[in-house]
Amino acid sequence: MPIVPSPASGPVTPAPPWTTTRWFNSDPLELADLRGRVVVLEAFQMLCPGCVAHGLPQAVRLTQTFGDDLAVIGLHSVFEHHAAMTPTSLEAFLHEYRIRFPVAVDAHRGEDPTPVTFARYRMRGTPSLVLIDRDGNVRGHQLGAVDDMTVAAAVARLLDAGPAAGHAGVAAAPTSVCTTDGDCA
Amino acid sequence: MPIVPSPASGPVTPAPPWTTTRWFNSDPLELADLRGRVVVLEAFQMLCPGCVAHGLPQAVRLTQTFGDDLAVIGLHSVFEHHAAMTPTSLEAFLHEYRIRFPVAVDAHRGEDPTPVTFARYRMRGTPSLVLIDRDGNVRGHQLGAVDDMTVAAAVARLLDAGPAAGHAGVAAAPTSVCTTDGDCA
Amino acid sequence: MPIVPSPASGPVTPAPPWTTTRWFNSDPLELADLRGRVVVLEAFQMLCPGCVAHGLPQAVRLTQTFGDDLAVIGLHSVFEHHAAMTPTSLEAFLHEYRIRFPVAVDAHRGEDPTPVTFARYRMRGTPSLVLIDRDGNVRGHQLGAVDDMTVAAAVARLLDAGPAAGHAGVAAAPTSVCTTDGDCA
Amino acid sequence: MPIVPSPASGPVTPAPPWTTTRWFNSDPLELADLRGRVVVLEAFQMLCPGCVAHGLPQAVRLTQTFGDDLAVIGLHSVFEHHAAMTPTSLEAFLHEYRIRFPVAVDAHRGEDPTPVTFARYRMRGTPSLVLIDRDGNVRGHQLGAVDDMTVAAAVARLLDAGPAAGHAGVAAAPTSVCTTDGDCA
Repeated sequence: MPIVPSPASGPVTPAPPWTTTRWFNSDPLELADLRGRVVVLEAFQMLCPGCVAHGLPQAVRLTQTFGDDLAVIGLHSVFEHHAAMTPTSLEAFLHEYRIRFPVAVDAHRGEDPTPVTFARYRMRGTPSLVLIDRDGNVRGHQLGAVDDMTVAAAVARLLDAGPAAGHAGVAAAPTSVCTTDGDCA
Repeated sequence: MPIVPSPASGPVTPAPPWTTTRWFNSDPLELADLRGRVVVLEAFQMLCPGCVAHGLPQAVRLTQTFGDDLAVIGLHSVFEHHAAMTPTSLEAFLHEYRIRFPVAVDAHRGEDPTPVTFARYRMRGTPSLVLIDRDGNVRGHQLGAVDDMTVAAAVARLLDAGPAAGHAGVAAAPTSVCTTDGDCA
Repeated sequence: MPIVPSPASGPVTPAPPWTTTRWFNSDPLELADLRGRVVVLEAFQMLCPGCVAHGLPQAVRLTQTFGDDLAVIGLHSVFEHHAAMTPTSLEAFLHEYRIRFPVAVDAHRGEDPTPVTFARYRMRGTPSLVLIDRDGNVRGHQLGAVDDMTVAAAVARLLDAGPAAGHAGVAAAPTSVCTTDGDCA
Repeated sequence: MPIVPSPASGPVTPAPPWTTTRWFNSDPLELADLRGRVVVLEAFQMLCPGCVAHGLPQAVRLTQTFGDDLAVIGLHSVFEHHAAMTPTSLEAFLHEYRIRFPVAVDAHRGEDPTPVTFARYRMRGTPSLVLIDRDGNVRGHQLGAVDDMTVAAAVARLLDAGPAAGHAGVAAAPTSVCTTDGDCA
């Protein structure tokens, strides 16, 4: 099942810090604020069809299934159509789609169209789901739609695992994505 | 089946003119340009969840099922979150969602948040679907999701009807809507 | 749109008679009893997954959309697993799945596993949908899943057409079928 | 999340033995044969719409997600329409629906319409899903549809738990069921 897990042997990778410019539904958060909790980082763009149809509804279901044990964090990582996906547009989007979990706006540096956190996590498109364990290590990474069972199993195992133990991952099914090297598909 | 049809007896209602500020996927169109064709006018807002999940995909299916016999026209009738749903945002939306049929931006007058064409058609929310016959008369009007069979039956009957004959309507199922008197539901 | 229509030019084909051994939800019916009405003949097998998932629910929706203008008739045409799909099993199936329209059991002759009416209509598998006009002529024929819009458009056109006029058909999308030359797919 | 779990405090309940008359896709199995593995027991009737639409497809997804770590066992517990759901009919059903995991036929005693194992597990209808841990204790019990995330989380936690540790359950959503005191709903 785990296709893109962190290596079980070898050193685990600490989740890079987030560089954000604005938060909705929450005060600004850093990873350190969430230490001790399992985190799902859901990177999306509000005009990415696969994010609207699959990624974000699944993130909502994760909050409903796991409650406070799991921190679900949205990351608005815009790499195209920047003028169309402003924080003003995002705020209306979150209101209309009733997204209630914390959502951060990924930062940009200079003229680079690729947002900072997105690049730092080596993401290639949206939606991207990153699983982070209680110790702040990346334990799974997925571009595109992934089925509910696989995500839930991976999250549950991280929740039950002691610090830095266990092994979790998310199966790949790279459909319904927007990638940085082309259109949404 | 027809719940909101034009009266079969009594005078039929000519479809009011459209007042628009911009067109995508087409040169500007007026109803007179479409005389002789059956028209589906699909009023939507790009951040209305019911429009994205139901109304617009159904409009695409209508173009696929009926081809050139039917003119499907999108009408972007923004009555809320105006700063978030600009023409710039709409253009990116249409690109990402691969909407290829003509889409008009409904005009606003002064400070009135309700767009002009939307008001003239007495619409109450989005998505709203208006059926117009070959002679330019309104033959059906629906707020919210309506099933594919009912819409297709109504369209097919208008396509087969001689001028101003027949009787068509669209069944009501007012779910998944954004209304002018409140939130989206 | 029409892929398997009867030829618009040339002679139309009269629907062959049905040879049945039992009826549920109705007294025995012959095509002549339905003259003047448009008929959808839905051939199915109760253990055919595509019939259960697509064909039969669509037949139910047809009854809901078109009411008494349309006669929807189920035809239980068993060509495999005969011992598993007896009239006794079918009766329970119709009860549990709440199929309320008339359903006939297709007859068998001697040891031939292929049922009589199924063969006479040159069907190749289930579900098969046959469209018959008010005059008793076959106007469309479809093996496998077909989308609601296409079916509804074809039915509506036959309903509106005068006797033997018009042109209707059902688009092909031969998925979710059981065919006589192999397994269900 | 866990609505019908076994009590976390207090003694856990050993899963009762199964009394079966026939097996498909496997030699006969007893719970003892599965000791050390987590077990999902999926009780169904082949003519129960909720079982066909929800319960059995979910059981297949469980086998795909968890592989050999999880033993998924079908239990054909017929409490109505006995003449319609014979082993002969079931065999054809399993073939057509491509159910490949082991399926047992629940036994009947004398004239009692309620099958033996079904009664012993105090089931009230189909589909019913029972979660059994590596030590053979019942850890969750659900009548009707339950979402994939909740089931997967419960299974994953049992898989990760040491013997008799942990705590798992399945949330209730008693829809799409056939119950012993009435029709399917």
